[in-house]
Amino acid sequence: MANPSTCPPLTRQSVQTAHKRIEPYIHRTPVRTCETLNSIASTAQCERPDGQPDTIPSKGTAKPKVRLFFKCENEQKIGAFKARGAFHALGRLIEEEGLESVRREGVVTHSSGNHAQALAFAAKTHGVPAYIVMPSISTPSKIAGTRSHGPEIIFSGSTSDEREAVVAEVIQKTGATLVPPYDHPDIMLGQGTQALELEAQAEALIAQDPSLGIQGKKRLDGIIAPIGGGGMLSGICTAMHGTGIKVFGAEPNFEGANDAEIGLKTGKRVEKVKTLTIADGLRTPVGHIPWSIITDKEKLEGIYSVSEEQIKAALRLAMERAKVFIEPSAAVPLAVVLYNEEFRGMLEREGGEEGWNLGVVFSGGNTTMEAIAKLFAAPAKVEERAEGKVGINGERTAENVAG
Amino acid sequence: MANPSTCPPLTRQSVQTAHKRIEPYIHRTPVRTCETLNSIASTAQCERPDGQPDTIPSKGTAKPKVRLFFKCENEQKIGAFKARGAFHALGRLIEEEGLESVRREGVVTHSSGNHAQALAFAAKTHGVPAYIVMPSISTPSKIAGTRSHGPEIIFSGSTSDEREAVVAEVIQKTGATLVPPYDHPDIMLGQGTQALELEAQAEALIAQDPSLGIQGKKRLDGIIAPIGGGGMLSGICTAMHGTGIKVFGAEPNFEGANDAEIGLKTGKRVEKVKTLTIADGLRTPVGHIPWSIITDKEKLEGIYSVSEEQIKAALRLAMERAKVFIEPSAAVPLAVVLYNEEFRGMLEREGGEEGWNLGVVFSGGNTTMEAIAKLFAAPAKVEERAEGKVGINGERTAENVAG
Repeated sequence: MANPSTCPPLTRQSVQTAHKRIEPYIHRTPVRTCETLNSIASTAQCERPDGQPDTIPSKGTAKPKVRLFFKCENEQKIGAFKARGAFHALGRLIEEEGLESVRREGVVTHSSGNHAQALAFAAKTHGVPAYIVMPSISTPSKIAGTRSHGPEIIFSGSTSDEREAVVAEVIQKTGATLVPPYDHPDIMLGQGTQALELEAQAEALIAQDPSLGIQGKKRLDGIIAPIGGGGMLSGICTAMHGTGIKVFGAEPNFEGANDAEIGLKTGKRVEKVKTLTIADGLRTPVGHIPWSIITDKEKLEGIYSVSEEQIKAALRLAMERAKVFIEPSAAVPLAVVLYNEEFRGMLEREGGEEGWNLGVVFSGGNTTMEAIAKLFAAPAKVEERAEGKVGINGERTAENVAG
Repeated sequence: MANPSTCPPLTRQSVQTAHKRIEPYIHRTPVRTCETLNSIASTAQCERPDGQPDTIPSKGTAKPKVRLFFKCENEQKIGAFKARGAFHALGRLIEEEGLESVRREGVVTHSSGNHAQALAFAAKTHGVPAYIVMPSISTPSKIAGTRSHGPEIIFSGSTSDEREAVVAEVIQKTGATLVPPYDHPDIMLGQGTQALELEAQAEALIAQDPSLGIQGKKRLDGIIAPIGGGGMLSGICTAMHGTGIKVFGAEPNFEGANDAEIGLKTGKRVEKVKTLTIADGLRTPVGHIPWSIITDKEKLEGIYSVSEEQIKAALRLAMERAKVFIEPSAAVPLAVVLYNEEFRGMLEREGGEEGWNLGVVFSGGNTTMEAIAKLFAAPAKVEERAEGKVGINGERTAENVAG
């Protein structure tokens, strides 16, 4: 990895430079809008109709006016924003060390998630060997997903000590450079590039059709994005600094997964997290360098957290209404917008009569039908199915006779 | 409904006129491409890697070259292409009878599916009362979905005789005009408009980035779309007639749902179908007027059918890889492209060295998380879960330590 001391400074301009570097290799993912979600977000929780699967009992009365702009990084290469950081980090490494040297020694990381796939894909693109250390108990689908990008996979035990020992071994043998998933300026600058696109795309959408945004406003007022290790959120903070576009973080709160929120409140970074939140991309604590950015009140407005039930409800709405296929981690910012009363109250107060144009990051779409089935499997309704033949969608068909 | 005898002729020009009429009310839905799906479609079935969840054992050796262009009608208003036909039929009715008369008497249909929602939505838009006759055993979510567009819902028994009796009653009481779901020229012309958009959008995409299409080709060679009642497929045939763009139909074959395919083979329209295929939008037999179009060999090249397992595999790929949220019926054309060896053989033979630019209609996205959960629920793998705490995605987390 490029030595942090030689990295570009963490500024908006560095994010712009990073964007130029990675543009040839990544998708400029689309930004979508959805009238139904705008309407739900702009309705007080206590006024939402009972009995809808997405309505969570709440006395919340905050009624912000919001227009949402979804940055669809689920359609990014390898299915998540992580491609941005990986291409940037590898590009910078090649610039510093020379392509030949990097091709000789390769890159290494330990991960079973989106970062591993992103690094393997970036490495393949540049003809660089990649070594991915994965716990041997990883599910076959994760192993197959990583393998499809052609790296060498090395199995390890599942604790972080065991994984790091194997990484050290790989480095000793091959000379490969470690590319960490989030705690490095090059990664942060790469992940931040999506905010530059979102900013410009929202403005272009509004220029084309002003009814997509808040009346009379030409650009975004804010962006909300998930925070796990903090690479992306700190990158977005860096990219938006000085633009007047406010940045917020969104986190699950199950089993202490809201380590960043807690850390900001206590003034102390939480170093360990042990949670099985369904937002499995956000189980890690914030890294050191991201922490130094998100604690800067000029760069981040605040972090808000949501329950598992709220994440599920937002995930359902994203799929059933907006028709986008995202992973649970990616639904967390939308869950904050729809269900976190503190956030909604703040939006209402600060947005006033006018309201907000709010960018919402859909960070990735790497999940499986089986994982979704586990989340939403409902016990069969015996009384409904007893009456006769019932279709998969629960409806009963008599004969279907042509009109 | 506008009297069929006064309807415009079933020509491409009539579809163009229909398109102008409905354009202010519908979305010009996006056309997407997906490298992964292009690559799977262009690999022989027997050469696809074993053990992937989307690989279905097959000795199929056909290896067509294809570039797919997905028309995302799942992002259409009310979540399906049916909005097109409903707006066109209602617009034509208003033209013929006058807005005041239609507002006084209203429109009626019997359906619990996308057509009911589409008609209710179009009626609301024009300030026209809508009466929707639904079987009283419809699932609460379908009733709620239809109700959200504000029609008057009248419950009936579930056989077609019972439903038609209630419709007759409504017409007698109110003077409402029946708008059938597919067997009417105005509906067919409306549904066909999507093909005009797909044709133009694919050409524009290729002009912008030639690598999205087959090398050296500037436009589509064909379009494949689902067939249930046949309103959409016959509309697409009509829209594409004379352009040189070939049209194909795609059908499930579970419990005789492939009535159109069988009908074409025997030369006789199948009048009744009784199937519980997961492609629940395609359970109806082809209507009389659509039949008169699809049996014209100058308009339709052929119909191909797929199994439930093939539909599920295509649905999985659309979601997990292309990241689009569609209903099972909408996955049927993609299933034909990926798994129907007869279709693939034809593509290979007729496409030759060059290959095909193929439009694929994703017709709708109105399904629920619960329906998907039923389709893909897997029995828990006891041996994997016995080892310790396992996350929702099956991976095991040890401690997550920053840095």
